Amino acid sequence: MKIIDGKKVSIEVLDEIKSSVDNRVKNNLKIPHLAAILVGNDGPSKTYVNSKIKACERVGFKSSLFKYSDSISENDLIDEIQKINNNDDIDGFIVQLPLPKDINQEKILSQVDPYKDVDGFHPINYGKMALGIDTFLPATPAGIIELIERSKIQTAGKKCLVIGRSQIVGRPISILLSQNKIFGNATVTVAHSRTSNLEELCLESDLIISAIGKPEFIKGDMVKKGSTIIDVGITRVDDSSSHKGYRIAGDVDFNSVSSRVGFITPVPGGVGPMTIAMLLKNTLKACSLSD
Amino acid sequence: MKIIDGKKVSIEVLDEIKSSVDNRVKNNLKIPHLAAILVGNDGPSKTYVNSKIKACERVGFKSSLFKYSDSISENDLIDEIQKINNNDDIDGFIVQLPLPKDINQEKILSQVDPYKDVDGFHPINYGKMALGIDTFLPATPAGIIELIERSKIQTAGKKCLVIGRSQIVGRPISILLSQNKIFGNATVTVAHSRTSNLEELCLESDLIISAIGKPEFIKGDMVKKGSTIIDVGITRVDDSSSHKGYRIAGDVDFNSVSSRVGFITPVPGGVGPMTIAMLLKNTLKACSLSD
Repeated sequence: MKIIDGKKVSIEVLDEIKSSVDNRVKNNLKIPHLAAILVGNDGPSKTYVNSKIKACERVGFKSSLFKYSDSISENDLIDEIQKINNNDDIDGFIVQLPLPKDINQEKILSQVDPYKDVDGFHPINYGKMALGIDTFLPATPAGIIELIERSKIQTAGKKCLVIGRSQIVGRPISILLSQNKIFGNATVTVAHSRTSNLEELCLESDLIISAIGKPEFIKGDMVKKGSTIIDVGITRVDDSSSHKGYRIAGDVDFNSVSSRVGFITPVPGGVGPMTIAMLLKNTLKACSLSD
Repeated sequence: MKIIDGKKVSIEVLDEIKSSVDNRVKNNLKIPHLAAILVGNDGPSKTYVNSKIKACERVGFKSSLFKYSDSISENDLIDEIQKINNNDDIDGFIVQLPLPKDINQEKILSQVDPYKDVDGFHPINYGKMALGIDTFLPATPAGIIELIERSKIQTAGKKCLVIGRSQIVGRPISILLSQNKIFGNATVTVAHSRTSNLEELCLESDLIISAIGKPEFIKGDMVKKGSTIIDVGITRVDDSSSHKGYRIAGDVDFNSVSSRVGFITPVPGGVGPMTIAMLLKNTLKACSLSD
């Protein structure tokens, strides 16, 4: 069994980005600039946005944080997005999700300039992704592909099970892994809340990507020997033995699963750190495209 | 076993469209107008385009056919598309595929005004489809959903196998059937040329949608008893007993398969006629949206 060290791989990716930025500086090219929009006071959202800003500093990017109260109207938020769309110094930006309930997320995401849409959630970029056209891939699925690629895990002709059909993870990774690309060509099944035979499907799969947020749902007796397990779940679970009072749990029961499988990502330290690295990679791409 | 009569269902849909057009005429609303672009002299393409024009006449639509030589340049074709985009009388139009080899299909399809893109192949509409946002669904998958719906075939929680991952059929139908919609919620697997265990997958499936163009590939011993078989394959096969010298064959060996299954679409007369009906339904929608 080999643990896929997402922390380590993400540092490799960040170091590569930093080299590119250093080269850009040497060549008098523009320094990439990522902006984030944060609406309201959601704790985890603040943490994620801060991690993104910190990662920008690490690789030498400029970053900007635009914070709005959760009472901002949809129209005012759209105006703010238009300002960022028109700000030539900003190469890419994200709208941190979730948004307050009375703001239409679909409407907001479609306002982001597709050339600055480094999250890849604008319908035109999502469509390009589904059509196999070069675009900004959503960061989490892009991070999963990067982990698979750098771990040299073969996917062609393999049975792959994606658990969860979210727009952010399950749907795009299921499409990408079944496309005719080097780290694609898998026979992909998408399971979800209405799937009736999930344990059987898990047992048959060479590669499982789980993104359902059910702590330690996948047990050792549900996985195929020698298979690869990518755990995208991140759930806070009460834990009195931790000084924080909680711990972060994945969808996979690491203890019982890890001894049976070929490759496994831990939680934390697996897919999580890759997500930010891939967001920065998209921002570098956006910046390079406008050189 | 019940044969799903696509010809009959398509006539129902066309009659419904005709009623809507009659109502529009009564209310002095615009008559829907579909245009088709045909480049070159491909025989089947001419046949398809002519069928579309004929169907327009049947439901009371206006139609226009724009024919260009296969020596037209990419830029000139784009200019022609812009003219149609700017022609207020045309509600929707299609670019008949395939295009000549030296014309970039991806580039051409992205020039179509998304609000007139009744084939649903513009990346923004394809992205909306993948995101579950209301849009123009590509005609063949929309026709399959319509057949399933009108035949009252349950899909929720069922094992569904889509054979083929084309942008036009396999990819979109696999996404639609796994979305959280009434005629969705299936557990969908996408098989393709790199899939290693296709016969086993077929045998396990409650619903098979085959779109690979391999005549009579799926045999009776490959399907589950009582399952539903949707055959999207259309291949010309030499046949000296036919006066044309050929017959049209589906992906499914109808004789051996039909006796084992619950529902099956024939070829011809299954999915084929639905495709044109759904294209007209999209055109009616485009026209209504601009009322």
